Amino acid sequence: MITHEDVPAAARRISGLVLRTPVLEVSPGLFFKLELLQHSGTFKVRGAFNRILSAGALPAGGVIAASGGNHGLAVAYAARELGVRAEIFVPEVASPVKVAGLEALGAHITQTGAIYSEAAEAAAKRAAETGALAVHAYDQAEVVAGQGTTGLELMEQTGGVDTVVVAVGGGGFAAGITLGTSSAAAPSSAGPRIVAVEPERCPTLHAALRAGEPVPVEVGGVAADALGATKLGGLAFEILAGPASGARVESVLVSDEAIVAARRTLWARHRVAAEHAGAAAYAALLSGVYTPAPGERVAVVVCGSNTDPATLTT
Amino acid sequence: MITHEDVPAAARRISGLVLRTPVLEVSPGLFFKLELLQHSGTFKVRGAFNRILSAGALPAGGVIAASGGNHGLAVAYAARELGVRAEIFVPEVASPVKVAGLEALGAHITQTGAIYSEAAEAAAKRAAETGALAVHAYDQAEVVAGQGTTGLELMEQTGGVDTVVVAVGGGGFAAGITLGTSSAAAPSSAGPRIVAVEPERCPTLHAALRAGEPVPVEVGGVAADALGATKLGGLAFEILAGPASGARVESVLVSDEAIVAARRTLWARHRVAAEHAGAAAYAALLSGVYTPAPGERVAVVVCGSNTDPATLTT
Repeated sequence: MITHEDVPAAARRISGLVLRTPVLEVSPGLFFKLELLQHSGTFKVRGAFNRILSAGALPAGGVIAASGGNHGLAVAYAARELGVRAEIFVPEVASPVKVAGLEALGAHITQTGAIYSEAAEAAAKRAAETGALAVHAYDQAEVVAGQGTTGLELMEQTGGVDTVVVAVGGGGFAAGITLGTSSAAAPSSAGPRIVAVEPERCPTLHAALRAGEPVPVEVGGVAADALGATKLGGLAFEILAGPASGARVESVLVSDEAIVAARRTLWARHRVAAEHAGAAAYAALLSGVYTPAPGERVAVVVCGSNTDPATLTT
Repeated sequence: MITHEDVPAAARRISGLVLRTPVLEVSPGLFFKLELLQHSGTFKVRGAFNRILSAGALPAGGVIAASGGNHGLAVAYAARELGVRAEIFVPEVASPVKVAGLEALGAHITQTGAIYSEAAEAAAKRAAETGALAVHAYDQAEVVAGQGTTGLELMEQTGGVDTVVVAVGGGGFAAGITLGTSSAAAPSSAGPRIVAVEPERCPTLHAALRAGEPVPVEVGGVAADALGATKLGGLAFEILAGPASGARVESVLVSDEAIVAARRTLWARHRVAAEHAGAAAYAALLSGVYTPAPGERVAVVVCGSNTDPATLTT
């Protein structure tokens, strides 16, 4: 079980190892949490550090992870900073930028499987052989709590918001932020509304809410390399659909076209260089899929920058 | 005459029109002031708004400016926001990205002259004909005071630093920051040390300090489109070399190679997409031209992002 108490504990554990990423108020009451400036280019180092540091003594096999790229980069980064060996399993769809980044961080890379779940299976098999500490991309309590520190920070930095708009892949980040924002708001309120944004072509949360449990979905589209988990995490489902926070969570879908347009606007208007997954949350706002009420204070988490910048204007 | 009292006045005048750009602490005691996320991509909107709003009623001819690009973008942006006509004179060396940006902002553009000073001459002639309000790129009190609000902000955001590292072209930004940081620090101290960084090939401040007055210099190199003023501003010289603040100001030069390397590092390591001029200040630190003492708190102003992102990795 994971509670919102775990998020401040994670924040203390990883303090000094992750960046307190800045918040930019782009217009009155609209905040960008610039988590794409985080070490390794995404929030995922938060969960990686929290998982590794929670484990105590590490096995000789070091740490192991499977990842569409960003989680792998994060685990490789955290392992390098902590002086631990990292083995990363990457599906064939991973972007060359991310694979090159993994190599630069000194990780041992195996590229295998057409999609994330196949790489994950291979990594699990390898972990069973070597005894390495597995760091899951989203479905581990320490990972969810680590990602949640983003929410805690943004509540402190903004003085509180009514709504947080965040992208969902496996759901660990959105679940963490749901906990982190309530831990910051409690006991005076339940915490802000969470608008959980998924590409139409990677609808794991949307499908889970409809089915009443996480179910496998087909994934594809422009953000699949980062949001292409085929099934929502069990922990994420408990949190995002559970009685304590489910009422605060609104699941919305955005088209690939909306993501592409949001990414282009983030660069052209705001000089924020996001990857497609990192622009998905803003796409919900820009395309009108989510429309704030007058005076509503909204934070958009811009969560990833592992992209070829040459494609920002195309 | 301009005093450090003018900077807080400018901050009040332009509040709500410019962004409070975020500060990122990239390692303990090292801060990036991300002024490149400012409207129009640089700090220059601060001076433009302050100049225009200080003028009271505007002439029918609107506002007019000459610019290597960034100042023009800033004046065009400010004029559009204030509903004023803007005419911009741009030298032939201006980057296509900046000229396209000017067009998108609805400014009336005249591209003329091989270098900045020739475009400036043409603009001055035109202003005399039309009576338009001239907004200088750096050598006007309201412009210097406006740019200085960046320094005021960064002192508030960091809780104070020992040193601010900032790029110099015509000197308006560095002079403003010298005033702005002392206005924030006064009366308890004189304000932080200012490390004024110029490309070796655009050494206006360096030459002025050697000559004892602003003198014309040859300009060229990777950052000339933004830092290529051929002579330091008179106001900037008074402030940067004057008895009140001259002792705090250290003039250093960086090579084009160091600027290119700093720009590449800003992207690769920090996901900050700067233009060459915007990376010049960081180049002084990264190349060792300026080496902070142990424990010294240093803010680097990353001041411009009007660049083709496709060139960030080259």
